[in-house]
Amino acid sequence: MPLLVVGSVALDCIETPTDKRDDVLGGSAVFFSYAASFFSPVRIIGAVGEDWPIQHTQLLTKKGIDTSGLQTIPGGQTFRWRGRYLPNMNDRETLEVHLNVLGEFQPQLNRTHQACRFLFLGNASPTVQLSVLDQAKGAELTVADTMDLWINIQRDELGALLKRIDGLVLNDSEAKLLANDENLVRAGHAVRAMGPKFVVIKKGEHGAMFFSVHEMYVMPAYPTPLVIDPTGAGDSFAGGMMGHLASLGRFDPQALKEALAYGVVTASFTVEDFSLDRLEKLSRHDLDRRLQEYRQMLTF
Amino acid sequence: MPLLVVGSVALDCIETPTDKRDDVLGGSAVFFSYAASFFSPVRIIGAVGEDWPIQHTQLLTKKGIDTSGLQTIPGGQTFRWRGRYLPNMNDRETLEVHLNVLGEFQPQLNRTHQACRFLFLGNASPTVQLSVLDQAKGAELTVADTMDLWINIQRDELGALLKRIDGLVLNDSEAKLLANDENLVRAGHAVRAMGPKFVVIKKGEHGAMFFSVHEMYVMPAYPTPLVIDPTGAGDSFAGGMMGHLASLGRFDPQALKEALAYGVVTASFTVEDFSLDRLEKLSRHDLDRRLQEYRQMLTF
Repeated sequence: MPLLVVGSVALDCIETPTDKRDDVLGGSAVFFSYAASFFSPVRIIGAVGEDWPIQHTQLLTKKGIDTSGLQTIPGGQTFRWRGRYLPNMNDRETLEVHLNVLGEFQPQLNRTHQACRFLFLGNASPTVQLSVLDQAKGAELTVADTMDLWINIQRDELGALLKRIDGLVLNDSEAKLLANDENLVRAGHAVRAMGPKFVVIKKGEHGAMFFSVHEMYVMPAYPTPLVIDPTGAGDSFAGGMMGHLASLGRFDPQALKEALAYGVVTASFTVEDFSLDRLEKLSRHDLDRRLQEYRQMLTF
Repeated sequence: MPLLVVGSVALDCIETPTDKRDDVLGGSAVFFSYAASFFSPVRIIGAVGEDWPIQHTQLLTKKGIDTSGLQTIPGGQTFRWRGRYLPNMNDRETLEVHLNVLGEFQPQLNRTHQACRFLFLGNASPTVQLSVLDQAKGAELTVADTMDLWINIQRDELGALLKRIDGLVLNDSEAKLLANDENLVRAGHAVRAMGPKFVVIKKGEHGAMFFSVHEMYVMPAYPTPLVIDPTGAGDSFAGGMMGHLASLGRFDPQALKEALAYGVVTASFTVEDFSLDRLEKLSRHDLDRRLQEYRQMLTF
């Protein structure tokens, strides 16, 4: 079942304690769509500039991703992010952000996009996310991401969004900020009470937590000894999760839990190299094998 | 099967962001023994001063704990710790430490102690832990705790201890320090390679990780919305774990995994109030019910 993602497409400059990369393929919609494509057909909507290397688009289309919604803005430059990871590889600092074409981007959905039943709103201003939501007439399951910036400067708009989406995915620090509560369990329930049917809190190397009216659970991260670059882990998590749901065509509690596990496992591969390098070498069989190990790990 | 614990017995002064308690019952051997007593007979060895309130001993004996190894040092004062928790309730700072009678304490095991097949060496200098190990002739499973202080100032002695014990339980920051590796997965394997058959890394609110030659897994903390005072969580975890093993009388991989789960669940109750207050109100049935919830939470 086709899955639509609207989000950022970026060129990243990454510094880790032991290595660095310049101008590598990144962005929430890129990580999400590539991760989801292991499970389900994916259509991506995003904007790039004239500096965008066409090979990046080719990498996505080669994976079967529908890139017809990837718009090149004449005279524009692609969104750029430069970040540095601290020695713990979980915390990072943003060194530079250039919104470029992302700053003015107003996503337009064509009929094919509008017909998608599964929609992921990657991190963007709630105003933009609401405008996408207005256009996505066929969406039956809508999940959004957000970030501290929008919690701080567009809280009302975010509140309006939360009342209209099915699921929200956000980081632990963002959940604490949004709920104004340092206890993640209480924060998760509080955010869910703001509107969405379910909330997923991403805890980086510590996994993820799930909250609905009837259920609350936590899933640890799959413990990989090889953490090269955590960039895109959260978006890959969401991609694996939504991709699995779209492949099933349903989102009951059991499907959601299995989807979270697939999200955890997909993200655990992403961090094992820069950009999409590890996912490019990955097969669906690898994902299923690690899911099986993960399931075994949690059985006692 | 009786379980022996040697460790600190303390009077704690605790400050949390919203509350405080002075001179409450604490110490590694106290939390450990009380937690373990839900599963198995426990004998405790420790030292207190003349300021020690006899009701504290009575609380332990009432729970069936053999306190004959609890020695009152004439003219001495009980070990005291004063700490403050940061708003995240996971990190804390030590404001005051008075070793008092703990500073010179040389544990002596009587015949009943020596016959115990399950031994837990609570956090103490590796020299003291080694001396206990020399006396514990009947011990078939020996697990020790340690801390950053000993890693920094008694690394050789700690190295000697690691070669003689079956299991080591330590915090995430201590594992990173001991292995000199910021990646916990690699750090856990590295510490295990120093001698013990298995290593358990405690991650506070993020759960625990297990390492043996054949196995590595992670278990999340049980997510309780009520975190009042995390003091003693790690020792309660170890108590629940060792108590379950002692009750089974075995420590094969399956028993160890279930024991870790019991440790997680026991610790999740400890943090729900100050000192032993929550555990005092607890029944074995409560532990088993939460274990069942925890198992369900991890099943997908």
